[in-house]
Amino acid sequence: MNKRLLVHLLGNILLIEAAAMLPSLLISLIYGDGDARAFVLAMIVLCLMGLPARLLAKPRTTNLRAREGFVTVALAWVLLSAFGALPFVISGVIPHYADAYFEAVSGFTTTGASVMTVIDGMPRGVMFWRSFTHWIGGMGVLVLTLALLPKMTGRTSHLMRAESPGPSFSKIVPKLSDSAKILYIIYGVLTLIEFIALLLCGMNAYDAAIHAMGTAGTGGFSNYGASVGAFDSVAVDIVVTVFMVIFGVNFALFYRVLVGDWKGALKSEELRWYLGIFGASALFITLMITPQYGSVFKALRYSTFQTATIMSTTGYATANFDLWPEAVKMLMVILMFVGSCAGSTAGGMKVVRVALMSKLSLREIRHTFQPRKVQVVRFEGKGVEESMLAQIATFCFVYVLLILLGAFVISLDGAHGFMENLTAAITCMCNVGPGLGAVGPAGNFAAYSPFSKIVLSMLMLCGRLELFPILVLFHPAIWRKG
Amino acid sequence: MNKRLLVHLLGNILLIEAAAMLPSLLISLIYGDGDARAFVLAMIVLCLMGLPARLLAKPRTTNLRAREGFVTVALAWVLLSAFGALPFVISGVIPHYADAYFEAVSGFTTTGASVMTVIDGMPRGVMFWRSFTHWIGGMGVLVLTLALLPKMTGRTSHLMRAESPGPSFSKIVPKLSDSAKILYIIYGVLTLIEFIALLLCGMNAYDAAIHAMGTAGTGGFSNYGASVGAFDSVAVDIVVTVFMVIFGVNFALFYRVLVGDWKGALKSEELRWYLGIFGASALFITLMITPQYGSVFKALRYSTFQTATIMSTTGYATANFDLWPEAVKMLMVILMFVGSCAGSTAGGMKVVRVALMSKLSLREIRHTFQPRKVQVVRFEGKGVEESMLAQIATFCFVYVLLILLGAFVISLDGAHGFMENLTAAITCMCNVGPGLGAVGPAGNFAAYSPFSKIVLSMLMLCGRLELFPILVLFHPAIWRKG
Repeated sequence: MNKRLLVHLLGNILLIEAAAMLPSLLISLIYGDGDARAFVLAMIVLCLMGLPARLLAKPRTTNLRAREGFVTVALAWVLLSAFGALPFVISGVIPHYADAYFEAVSGFTTTGASVMTVIDGMPRGVMFWRSFTHWIGGMGVLVLTLALLPKMTGRTSHLMRAESPGPSFSKIVPKLSDSAKILYIIYGVLTLIEFIALLLCGMNAYDAAIHAMGTAGTGGFSNYGASVGAFDSVAVDIVVTVFMVIFGVNFALFYRVLVGDWKGALKSEELRWYLGIFGASALFITLMITPQYGSVFKALRYSTFQTATIMSTTGYATANFDLWPEAVKMLMVILMFVGSCAGSTAGGMKVVRVALMSKLSLREIRHTFQPRKVQVVRFEGKGVEESMLAQIATFCFVYVLLILLGAFVISLDGAHGFMENLTAAITCMCNVGPGLGAVGPAGNFAAYSPFSKIVLSMLMLCGRLELFPILVLFHPAIWRKG
Repeated sequence: MNKRLLVHLLGNILLIEAAAMLPSLLISLIYGDGDARAFVLAMIVLCLMGLPARLLAKPRTTNLRAREGFVTVALAWVLLSAFGALPFVISGVIPHYADAYFEAVSGFTTTGASVMTVIDGMPRGVMFWRSFTHWIGGMGVLVLTLALLPKMTGRTSHLMRAESPGPSFSKIVPKLSDSAKILYIIYGVLTLIEFIALLLCGMNAYDAAIHAMGTAGTGGFSNYGASVGAFDSVAVDIVVTVFMVIFGVNFALFYRVLVGDWKGALKSEELRWYLGIFGASALFITLMITPQYGSVFKALRYSTFQTATIMSTTGYATANFDLWPEAVKMLMVILMFVGSCAGSTAGGMKVVRVALMSKLSLREIRHTFQPRKVQVVRFEGKGVEESMLAQIATFCFVYVLLILLGAFVISLDGAHGFMENLTAAITCMCNVGPGLGAVGPAGNFAAYSPFSKIVLSMLMLCGRLELFPILVLFHPAIWRKG
C-alpha cells in the first residue's frame, strides 16, 4: 500500500474542501446570519489537517494500484463528510454530530435525506453549504481533484472509475485529466443554464442557486420545508423537471452533442430505456392521480415532477406522493431501484444495469428450453462480455442484500415501522432522499438513533460509490502487506 | 412439441389427482359433514377429462425434450390447482372460484396462505383435502407420476428436474424412477413418524394427520384458526419445530444416512449454513422477545418455532410475530427469502443459492482490488462452474423482480397498504404463508380482489417451480414449431 500517496491525496482533498467552503463563507458574510464563524473555524481545521498531510507525505511515485485507488476514494468520501459536517455543528443548525454527519453524507452523496425538522429561516451560509455539497458530490470530488491537479496524479484511472457510476468506465477523451475537466465544464454550464432559467421564472438569486445545485447533483436539499412546492409555480416545476431528467443522462452523451454527434447521442440504447421508463411511469401515474387532482393538467404536472425526482434520485417534492394510491407508491419504490443512466450524477442501480439484467433474464428463460443455443446479450449494438454480466448480477445481489441488512439494523431502533425502515434503507442506498410514511416527502429522518443514522450514512456512501470502494474497506486482505 | 405425449401425461396426472381425492372422500364419509358429494363430483370431472386424454393421445415416443418437460410441469401444476379447487367450491366452503383457486394453488405449492376467514368447524373432508394438497405438492406430483408409472416415461429427467428445488439436480440412484420411489418412501416414513409423535402428544388422529401433512410439505394449513397455537402444548411445539427443520433438509442427505453414510451427510456444507442461520436467528429472536414473554424458556419456545416455520417456509404459528419488535419482523422477512435447503420440500431462494451468492460477492469485492488473481468459488468441497454462478445470480434477480412487479400489480387493488402488499408478494413467492400486518399470522388474504388472487397464485407457482418452468409459458418462442 502506497501510504504516502494516500495521505498526500487525502491532504489535497481536505484543502479542496476548505476552498469549497469559500462561497458559503462569502454568502454568510453577505447576509450576516451569524454563521460566518462556523466556516472560518471549519476551514482552519481543514487546513490544519490537510496542509501537513500534503506537505509532509511526499509520495515517491504517483502510480496508484487498484486497491490504493479504491481505498483513497472511500476514505476521501468518509473524511469529506466528517469535516463537511463541522459548519452544521459549529453554527448550531444541527447541534449533534451524528446528525450533522448524516446530513453531510446525505449532501455529498446527493441523497437529500435530512434530519432537520425546521428548514425555513435557517442561516443562509450554512444552507448554501448544505446544497453546495450536492454540487461537489454529484460529479465527484476525485474527478474535481483530477481536473484541478493533473500533475499530481499519474496512473490514477482507478480514482475516477471508482467515483463514476455505472458498470463500465470509459474516458471521454484519451487523457484522464482532460476528461475530468470536460465533465466539470459541461456540469458547470448546465448548472448555470438552470440557474438563469430559474431566475427568469422569478426566483431570487439565492433560491435559484440552491435549487440549481440541488438539481445538478440530483441531490434534493431545498431551503424551504415545502421543497420546490414552496414556489407553487408551473414555470419552476417545468424547469426543474426538465433539468432533473437532463442530469440523469450520461454526461458522455452531452460531450457527443458538443462535438456535433447529435445522432450518435440520440441512438444511445440506455437513453431510450431511460426516457421510455420515465414516459411510461409518468403516464401511468397521471392516470392514477387525475381523480385526486380533478384535472389532467395538474395530474400531469405533479406526476412528471415526482417521476423525474425519483428516477433522477433528486428528491425534491411538489406533492406528497405518500398520499397517492398504493400502486403509485409501489411504483415509486421500484423506480428508486432503477435510477438513471450510468455516468450521470444520479443514483440507483442505473438503467443500464436493469436493462442488461432484463436481457440476461430473458436469455436465461430461453436457455431453459433451448439449452444448446448460444445467445449473446447485446447492448448499444455490441455483445456484452459474460464476465461483465456476472459482475452486474453480483452487484444487484449485494445491492439488495445491503438494503435488507441496513433495514434490519435500523429496525433495532424501534423508532419506525416496517415500511419506514425498508424505504429508508432503499432511499438512502439509491441516493434518492424521501421514503414512505414518516420518512416520506413530508417527513424526515430525525427520529432515528445516532447509530441508525451512521448505518444509513454508510448505505448512502455505498450507493454513491457503487458498493465496492466502501466494501473493500471491510475486507481483511486489503490491509495486508503486498 | 410432442403434443401427444404432453396431453397423455396431463391426462395421467388428472387421474392421479382423482385417486388422490379418495382419502378425503373417505374422511368425509366417516365424519358425515356433508362434503362427500363435492369429492364425488370433482372426481367425475377429473375422470371425464383425464381418461380420454390418457387413452386417446397415444404418444409415439416417450422421449421428452427440455421444452416439453417444462411445459408439461407448468401446465400440470396449473391444471392440478384448477381442478383441486373444485371440492372447495362444490362444498360451499369457498364459494368463489378465484378464491378456491388461490387456496388450491396455496395448497399444492405448500404456501399455506389462505383466503378463509373462518377455519374452525369446517367440513372435515374438505379440510383434509386442503392439507393433503400440501403433502402431494411438497415432494411434487411429477415425481409421484414417475414413481407410479415408470414405464410410461422414458427420458424424462426434465420433469423431475423442473419440480425439484435447487440450482442443480442430481439423481439419488442412477435410475430416475427408483430415485422418485426412494424420495416418496423417505417422505412417507418421515410423515408417519411425525404423525405418531403427534398422537403421542395427545392429538387426535385427524388433527395429527392434518398437521403431519402440513409439516411434511412445509405448507402450513391448519384446521384451527389459531394454527398449532390452538393446542398450546410444549410437546406439540417441539415435535412440529423439529420436523419443520427436518423437512427443510435436502432429502438426498436422508438417503445417505439410510445407506449408512452418516458422516457424509453431516459434512454437507449447505446443511451447516442452514442450521447455522437457523440457530443464530432463533437465538437473536429469543433475546429480543424475552422481555415480552417474561421468561427465557417461553421466548425460546416461541422463537424456535417461528424461526423454523419461516425458514422451512411452512407458515404454522404459535405466536403472532407481527406483534414482535420491528427488527424481528424484518429478520423474518429476510429469512423468507433464504428458505431452506435445495432438494427439500421447502420454498424460498434456498440456502445453497444464498450461500453461493455470498461467496460470489466476497470474491467480487476481492476482485476489485486484486483484479488479476483468479479465484474459484467452492461449495461442498468442489469448485463451482462460472456458468452456474451466473445462472444463480440471474435467478435471484428475476426472483426479486417478480416480487416487486407482483407487489405493484396487487397494489392496484387498494385493498391493503405498502407493507401488506410487499410482504404478501414475498410470502407467496417464497411459499411461506403469512406476511406482515393484515396478511400476517393472524390475518388472511380474503380482502384482495380476484385479479390480485390470481396474480399471487402465479407468484406461488413461480416460487414452487423455481421461476423458469412458469416463465417459459410466456416466452413466444416456446410455442413455435420445431
